[in-house]
Amino acid sequence: MPELRKDPVVGRWVILSTARSRRPTNFVPATRGKSTGFCPFCPGNEDKTPPAVYAARSDQGPTNAPGWTVRVVPNKFPALQIEGGLDRHGEGLYDRMNGVGAHEVVIESPDHQLELADLPVAHIHQVLLAYRERIIDLHKDKRLRYVLIFKNHGEQAGATLEHTHSQLIATPIIPRVLQEELEGARRYYELKERCVFCDIVHQETADNNGRRVVAMNDRFVALEPFAPRFPFETWILPRRHDASYQTTGDPAEYLELAALLKDTLGRLNRALDRPPYNFVLHTAPVSDGDLEYYHWHLEIMPNLTRVAGFEMGSGFHINPTPPEDAAQYLREIAAEAPADPGR
Amino acid sequence: MPELRKDPVVGRWVILSTARSRRPTNFVPATRGKSTGFCPFCPGNEDKTPPAVYAARSDQGPTNAPGWTVRVVPNKFPALQIEGGLDRHGEGLYDRMNGVGAHEVVIESPDHQLELADLPVAHIHQVLLAYRERIIDLHKDKRLRYVLIFKNHGEQAGATLEHTHSQLIATPIIPRVLQEELEGARRYYELKERCVFCDIVHQETADNNGRRVVAMNDRFVALEPFAPRFPFETWILPRRHDASYQTTGDPAEYLELAALLKDTLGRLNRALDRPPYNFVLHTAPVSDGDLEYYHWHLEIMPNLTRVAGFEMGSGFHINPTPPEDAAQYLREIAAEAPADPGR
Repeated sequence: MPELRKDPVVGRWVILSTARSRRPTNFVPATRGKSTGFCPFCPGNEDKTPPAVYAARSDQGPTNAPGWTVRVVPNKFPALQIEGGLDRHGEGLYDRMNGVGAHEVVIESPDHQLELADLPVAHIHQVLLAYRERIIDLHKDKRLRYVLIFKNHGEQAGATLEHTHSQLIATPIIPRVLQEELEGARRYYELKERCVFCDIVHQETADNNGRRVVAMNDRFVALEPFAPRFPFETWILPRRHDASYQTTGDPAEYLELAALLKDTLGRLNRALDRPPYNFVLHTAPVSDGDLEYYHWHLEIMPNLTRVAGFEMGSGFHINPTPPEDAAQYLREIAAEAPADPGR
Repeated sequence: MPELRKDPVVGRWVILSTARSRRPTNFVPATRGKSTGFCPFCPGNEDKTPPAVYAARSDQGPTNAPGWTVRVVPNKFPALQIEGGLDRHGEGLYDRMNGVGAHEVVIESPDHQLELADLPVAHIHQVLLAYRERIIDLHKDKRLRYVLIFKNHGEQAGATLEHTHSQLIATPIIPRVLQEELEGARRYYELKERCVFCDIVHQETADNNGRRVVAMNDRFVALEPFAPRFPFETWILPRRHDASYQTTGDPAEYLELAALLKDTLGRLNRALDRPPYNFVLHTAPVSDGDLEYYHWHLEIMPNLTRVAGFEMGSGFHINPTPPEDAAQYLREIAAEAPADPGR
């Protein structure tokens, strides 16, 4: 059983995972096999993953057989385990609990060769709807406080399988990074009675001549944040206030998001020669769907620089690229596909 | 001039550095030259770095000529710049200030072939005294609030030059990671009237049968923390309360630290086949030398796993190695050199 442990000084929780390697020799760098020929995410190999918890398909075929377009399966080597109680207890001054949670893989396409940015907008739309369905479903589990969707693209960004996929980890604790965002946004709201993210969107699109805007459509904006940790860090936010990704009612919303996501990833791919990247979806916690002070968004972080001792020891990031320069560059480069389907 | 910018939601500051690469093409991975033959840190090349701000040498020779044992120079490509005022100002809802600060390199040895763990204890002692002198000197600059010593060892851990060195960055803001430690430790003190780090040292050395202890001498203990972010993360702490590294009066203290640091790095090298690693020195801020609630320490983080989307998006770390296993492994392996000189 994995275990959650809390640092007694700063309150940071860590997951001690037992399903993964542990002895020192396991860490000695191995040249990682690229394309051994076998891929558990390819159609026909459905029995090599745990049974699907969600599948999108155009026909009426069985869930765990070829014909799906997007497929969500439990991670075979989960960081957290779905069975069991939390069993919170102490050990002297320390706190721990069982590593209860969910860890799922969203297989974004049956095609082994394509990456997310290469998929048609309509297909990316299906991926985004899969995220939504899984978040809504996992919110029914009262032990879980947060569902984080993220993507590691490219080996350098932490992907261990090359077949395009994203992941979901649901935790029994609100993650610290979210807690900080929620608290910061709440403090701002108390002071101003406005959502800080709405103010950011307004300032970036209206007041600043769009200096940090990369691309935009009716409902979403892609921009370089004012204080980016990483070169070409790009956020996508809804232009109108919306606390939570999964409660956005209108399916057209996700189609516009799919279009802007494809456009943005296409620009990053062109500008940076298909860089490894991570993205994370930040949305309101389970119980707080309609917060006035929070605003869901996607943070895309190309993996171009190393995080080293200074960043780890201080929390400061050193970024060599001003966001105004990055935005200009990304605006001026053509994306690989039109930003908006059907217009 | 580099610039400091603050994220308006979470209050995280970033350094936008102008002395470093910025155009997209600069990020396209280059095979990094190892041993081109020329090293600016080797004796004889003193004029290839800015003039030294500190040098330890056994003779009376000039500061910037061969004969030194440890040499501290300003970084030729500094993340922050020592000249100028802070010029704090706003831009709509955002905050920024000039990137004023110090960025120095501690060249730990004249010998290009040795790494820190290979140096004799007496030489490591000189490195530790150089840290102390530089912290004390930079504390005289009223614009600076914090001096962070850190080391990136190995290319994978962010080192760009292979000649053994550590670095120092002094910032006009107390770094967020330190702020969190200070606040956490203060809250604990308010509740218990005890230093949380003292309690950790006590629980680890007395109550837990030393399950997480790696090695110890009269004044210091090396241990695996209860909730480590990384496999084989190891902390070295003074066994008796001491808020600040640089005000430890007794030079013998630093000699004991040198011995335990060499012992600990030697064990990690043996166990993990000379891994890349980072370490950071956490000590009380400039103005708070004698805090009752804070306790300086060194955090050593071998670079064995990748930090990816989940860690970045949540702040949770997934660690595959329980600290009890890591400690046992490191205790049982012989270090490369005796733990304590002269006994």
